[in-house]
Amino acid sequence: MQLGRVTGKVVATRKLDSIANLKMLIVQPLDQDKRPMGKETVAIDTVQAGQGDTVFFVTGREASFPLPEAFNPVDATIIGIVDSID
Amino acid sequence: MQLGRVTGKVVATRKLDSIANLKMLIVQPLDQDKRPMGKETVAIDTVQAGQGDTVFFVTGREASFPLPEAFNPVDATIIGIVDSID
Amino acid sequence: MQLGRVTGKVVATRKLDSIANLKMLIVQPLDQDKRPMGKETVAIDTVQAGQGDTVFFVTGREASFPLPEAFNPVDATIIGIVDSID
Amino acid sequence: MQLGRVTGKVVATRKLDSIANLKMLIVQPLDQDKRPMGKETVAIDTVQAGQGDTVFFVTGREASFPLPEAFNPVDATIIGIVDSID
Amino acid sequence: MQLGRVTGKVVATRKLDSIANLKMLIVQPLDQDKRPMGKETVAIDTVQAGQGDTVFFVTGREASFPLPEAFNPVDATIIGIVDSID
Repeated sequence: MQLGRVTGKVVATRKLDSIANLKMLIVQPLDQDKRPMGKETVAIDTVQAGQGDTVFFVTGREASFPLPEAFNPVDATIIGIVDSID
Repeated sequence: MQLGRVTGKVVATRKLDSIANLKMLIVQPLDQDKRPMGKETVAIDTVQAGQGDTVFFVTGREASFPLPEAFNPVDATIIGIVDSID
Repeated sequence: MQLGRVTGKVVATRKLDSIANLKMLIVQPLDQDKRPMGKETVAIDTVQAGQGDTVFFVTGREASFPLPEAFNPVDATIIGIVDSID
Repeated sequence: MQLGRVTGKVVATRKLDSIANLKMLIVQPLDQDKRPMGKETVAIDTVQAGQGDTVFFVTGREASFPLPEAFNPVDATIIGIVDSID
Repeated sequence: MQLGRVTGKVVATRKLDSIANLKMLIVQPLDQDKRPMGKETVAIDTVQAGQGDTVFFVTGREASFPLPEAFNPVDATIIGIVDSID
């Protein structure tokens, strides 16, 4: 998983049916000190994350496991909101 | 998923049968401000994307889920066209 | 697998139910000489690793194999503590 | 998928039985203008590609789908020869 | 697959049971001319590779296919020893 900050939202009317009802957020990966690190990604939200939230997200085949359809073509999903880093 | 811009099309007559009827586009990944970021990839089109369109695409094992054959050897697929980024 | 050092712990109360009881550590990848190399990741702990330990971790689809639920959305898991590198 | 150019061939007599009969080529990834981009990889050939050919190849779990054995430990496979890029 | 050179061995007494009997080597990826390229990885050995050998290894989900247990949490495995590169 990676730490990240929600920095935007993607609006798309023309897309695959299977992802029609999923919220897509732009996430900037962060390091342990919450500094930007690496490339932005578009991730599905499963925890009601909002603009500016520090989150952690999972990538790859596992990213579709939390979704209603296991074979959703999704490769990045926000699965938690970070309270603090010790 | 990643944001990207369609920048070209790959023409190939000699290829695996299972991908014979798939349209292959070249996509330049973009950041949130639509600036080029990272390396171009060749992605299958499922949403009738055209040259210059801003799209988002999925990579990895999940990329073949939207295709007729689940075991298609495809690792990048365009699954939506971006209207705007908030 | 990669070598890494445990550098922190992620605290998150709002997260997916399926990962509610998993300990999430921040790991800095290391090279053979234990120098930092590449980007930090958040990994699940399965071997009671602690702050400062040199560990090795697995990434990708395989990262969820050691967990109770095979379809846990986890993409990095610590699977051993390093004694020495010859 | 990525564009690439075949730049060499790997000869190995001691290898896993399941890959004993597969041709392994070295491929240099290319950008849209056929300039080298990123790191060389060793890919299995399924389309009779030869030295200097411009090809496209698939990576990851999907790379083994075109092979006789679905559980072949292969992570990069050449699946087409490029005629032109528009 | 990638070319690499065996540069070390990882010793770990505290690790997951399912990987208890696997030999873990450190591999430095190489380019076609056998120059170091990219980051070291820890890979399981299946071909009796030794210190200094030029090998090729597979990464990702496929890395566990050559192992006795298909669901071993392994993401990099050495599958051959290179005789020469043409």
